[in-house]
Amino acid sequence: MEKLFGFVDQQIDRFLDELKTLLRLESISADPAKKTACATTAQWLADHLKAIGVRESRVIPTAGHPLVYGFHPGPAGAPTVLIYGHYDVQPVDPLELWTTPPFEPTIRDGKIFGRGTTDDKGQLLIHLKAVETMLKLEGKLPVSVKFLFEGEEEVGSEALTAWLPGNKELLACDIVLVSDSSMIAKGQPSINYGLRGLIYFQVDLETATGDLHSGSFGGGVANPINVLAELLASMKDENNRVTIPGFYDDVLEITAEEQANYALLPEGTAELLASSGAEMAYGEAGFTTAQRISARPTLDANGIWGGFSGEGAKTVLPARAGLKVSMRLVPNQDPKKIAALFKDYVEKHTPKAARLKITEMHGGRWFMCPLTEPALRKGAASLEEVYGKQCLFTREGGSIPIVADMAAVLEKPVVLMGFGLNSEQAHAPNEHFDLENFQRGIKTSLLYLHKLAQ
Amino acid sequence: MEKLFGFVDQQIDRFLDELKTLLRLESISADPAKKTACATTAQWLADHLKAIGVRESRVIPTAGHPLVYGFHPGPAGAPTVLIYGHYDVQPVDPLELWTTPPFEPTIRDGKIFGRGTTDDKGQLLIHLKAVETMLKLEGKLPVSVKFLFEGEEEVGSEALTAWLPGNKELLACDIVLVSDSSMIAKGQPSINYGLRGLIYFQVDLETATGDLHSGSFGGGVANPINVLAELLASMKDENNRVTIPGFYDDVLEITAEEQANYALLPEGTAELLASSGAEMAYGEAGFTTAQRISARPTLDANGIWGGFSGEGAKTVLPARAGLKVSMRLVPNQDPKKIAALFKDYVEKHTPKAARLKITEMHGGRWFMCPLTEPALRKGAASLEEVYGKQCLFTREGGSIPIVADMAAVLEKPVVLMGFGLNSEQAHAPNEHFDLENFQRGIKTSLLYLHKLAQ
Repeated sequence: MEKLFGFVDQQIDRFLDELKTLLRLESISADPAKKTACATTAQWLADHLKAIGVRESRVIPTAGHPLVYGFHPGPAGAPTVLIYGHYDVQPVDPLELWTTPPFEPTIRDGKIFGRGTTDDKGQLLIHLKAVETMLKLEGKLPVSVKFLFEGEEEVGSEALTAWLPGNKELLACDIVLVSDSSMIAKGQPSINYGLRGLIYFQVDLETATGDLHSGSFGGGVANPINVLAELLASMKDENNRVTIPGFYDDVLEITAEEQANYALLPEGTAELLASSGAEMAYGEAGFTTAQRISARPTLDANGIWGGFSGEGAKTVLPARAGLKVSMRLVPNQDPKKIAALFKDYVEKHTPKAARLKITEMHGGRWFMCPLTEPALRKGAASLEEVYGKQCLFTREGGSIPIVADMAAVLEKPVVLMGFGLNSEQAHAPNEHFDLENFQRGIKTSLLYLHKLAQ
Repeated sequence: MEKLFGFVDQQIDRFLDELKTLLRLESISADPAKKTACATTAQWLADHLKAIGVRESRVIPTAGHPLVYGFHPGPAGAPTVLIYGHYDVQPVDPLELWTTPPFEPTIRDGKIFGRGTTDDKGQLLIHLKAVETMLKLEGKLPVSVKFLFEGEEEVGSEALTAWLPGNKELLACDIVLVSDSSMIAKGQPSINYGLRGLIYFQVDLETATGDLHSGSFGGGVANPINVLAELLASMKDENNRVTIPGFYDDVLEITAEEQANYALLPEGTAELLASSGAEMAYGEAGFTTAQRISARPTLDANGIWGGFSGEGAKTVLPARAGLKVSMRLVPNQDPKKIAALFKDYVEKHTPKAARLKITEMHGGRWFMCPLTEPALRKGAASLEEVYGKQCLFTREGGSIPIVADMAAVLEKPVVLMGFGLNSEQAHAPNEHFDLENFQRGIKTSLLYLHKLAQ
């Protein structure tokens, strides 16, 4: 391993130059004008896989931006690792807030600045450089490696989601490895072993054909805002628990081991509150803030509207009101089942005086890799060896639908080995990536692929 | 009386020509470009009072549109009647929906069409023509009469409200007579003996300094929409009764006599529902729809907003949400007391996690003339004599703050003797006034002023 690590240290400037080349390609998936740039980026990656000695590599066209697939066999009987990443990046606005131009990568203060540095070109290249190092120095890989890079992660992974189920065989593997998330703090390795799922609804109520005068009609016909407020309020009790029958039935309780993990995490409440500007923590009784925002399901209104919202007083009795409401789901809540429970509850609890329309919007499955999963443990061990510090285990409150989809379609563990930092401005101006994490990332990947062979 | 009535029948075409002259003056109080038109209208009325023989008459300038005051003494010891009306009219948009131009009064189908015909120039002129008739034929009035016409009723009566308390002596009277409302149906005389009051609030909640990601923060910090919904929902119970402590303490219960009156009214629920497009009646348990919308207080949200209301799904955890909420008040609820109870309730029931701002908007006092009031009974008797049908007694759900203010400042009964019809498009295109009601109105006024002298 020493020899491999030495090569990384020696070649790091070239690796960075290659990263810069990749970063200069303006692969903004949301921008139709950048369609060619996205195609060029996919081709660059396929070419680069070939250049570093990966046996098979190709660009796969889709209705959207192309996929890149690669494969290099390992020894007979060795496991197969599918490495996922995405080459598309977020738009760059507001441009004036960038210290240096987003597509002219620049190194300063031990960081590389540019759009896509941490999300996800820098993290993606880590594994290519690890594979290159092994193929160069050892002429072979300890495991079979498949690569899958997409160009639509920032716009919903539509093409990949559609393509995935029909290509199970091509993607057949033992472990999925994803570096598209963050570590808990600089120098503190961590693995994110869970993501919440999401279901999202719009609820529209109508109680009259047009707005009415609140003097002439007030008290005699239903008010859709009052009705909607009652409906929404009735979905939570005084302990901030969701009251929809069956909502918690399948929720995987936080285990003793997880409790111990939560106890190891830096106390995040103060930081969370400071960053949000909230007066105080607020949520489900009986759980810490860290647990509430990662391991417990939620029910949050995302938007509400109805009646008059301008300056002053208008005595209108509105005809219509609407609500966007979503639930973050946790293992093992079935999104379809919870969606049905929600719809049933809303239908049952809406008075007949209101005409009801429920619209289900896009959602996503939760994801969890069991803490006992050997691939996870080996990932943690690799991180610990490279960073010289105990790896922490975290769960995230957000949703990455494509990760959950891959886990569900391929039915294999997904290891989220993030080398980014939450402070690195992903999606914002002055996005950057820590150079030490880039270099340590390559070493961790080298070590990890070897460990998976054992 | 026969001679007086005969004069009205004989002169009705001239009376209508005078009404047309008044209607041609474009006294839209809301339109700054019509300031001169309003002043001209006030002067026309003052001149007309003089022309018909009213002893004293003058225009009183205000910060807004001028008032018109008039006085003609009756026999010593006779009561004084203050006749209120307003010469300003609503804007005319949308102009294209008018069959004939709003300021070119036209007669067709037994109605006079034009802006201000029923609200309130036509109704106002009724009393002037009654007074003219008496002065012409009898040379005197049976009672002392004061006139008070304002030019800002359609924009909130600001100038009159301010002027009122300092001019109690000038306005000293025994009865206030107002014809600015409607009768229950054509040919069915009615007197409106009550109006609801109004208090109106805006409630703003903030739980964070900016919108948050519902994945990263959801479940850990308060959601202002959920909090607002709980707050609003908690203000009503399952019987649609307001739960704010003390809210109903002073509510004047519906008397047996009123119950009997409600029973005489045409069943309005079906008509109300049809005109509103509501599925069904909905309101406080234990009361009929007619009672709910006139004699019972309400609590209605007039507007709500917060978070994302566009197309699709945005997983935002909003930082702010707001609510407009108003209460229609009934006798003997004190608006100040109820406002204080409301504020106190909101403050007590808003969790500390939300920063709260309560803004009180303009409101108005309720009004009621006791059914036992002789001036009311004489009004009913006059209507019955002219219309040949029993007069019904109604209460209205809306608020006319200036009526309540006059009742409170002058401490005298106000008789709302309306000759308009609800179908006459006040405030809308093709506003009109029934010619039969105009003519019968003059006769009723003649009879009423004589009856008040008895």
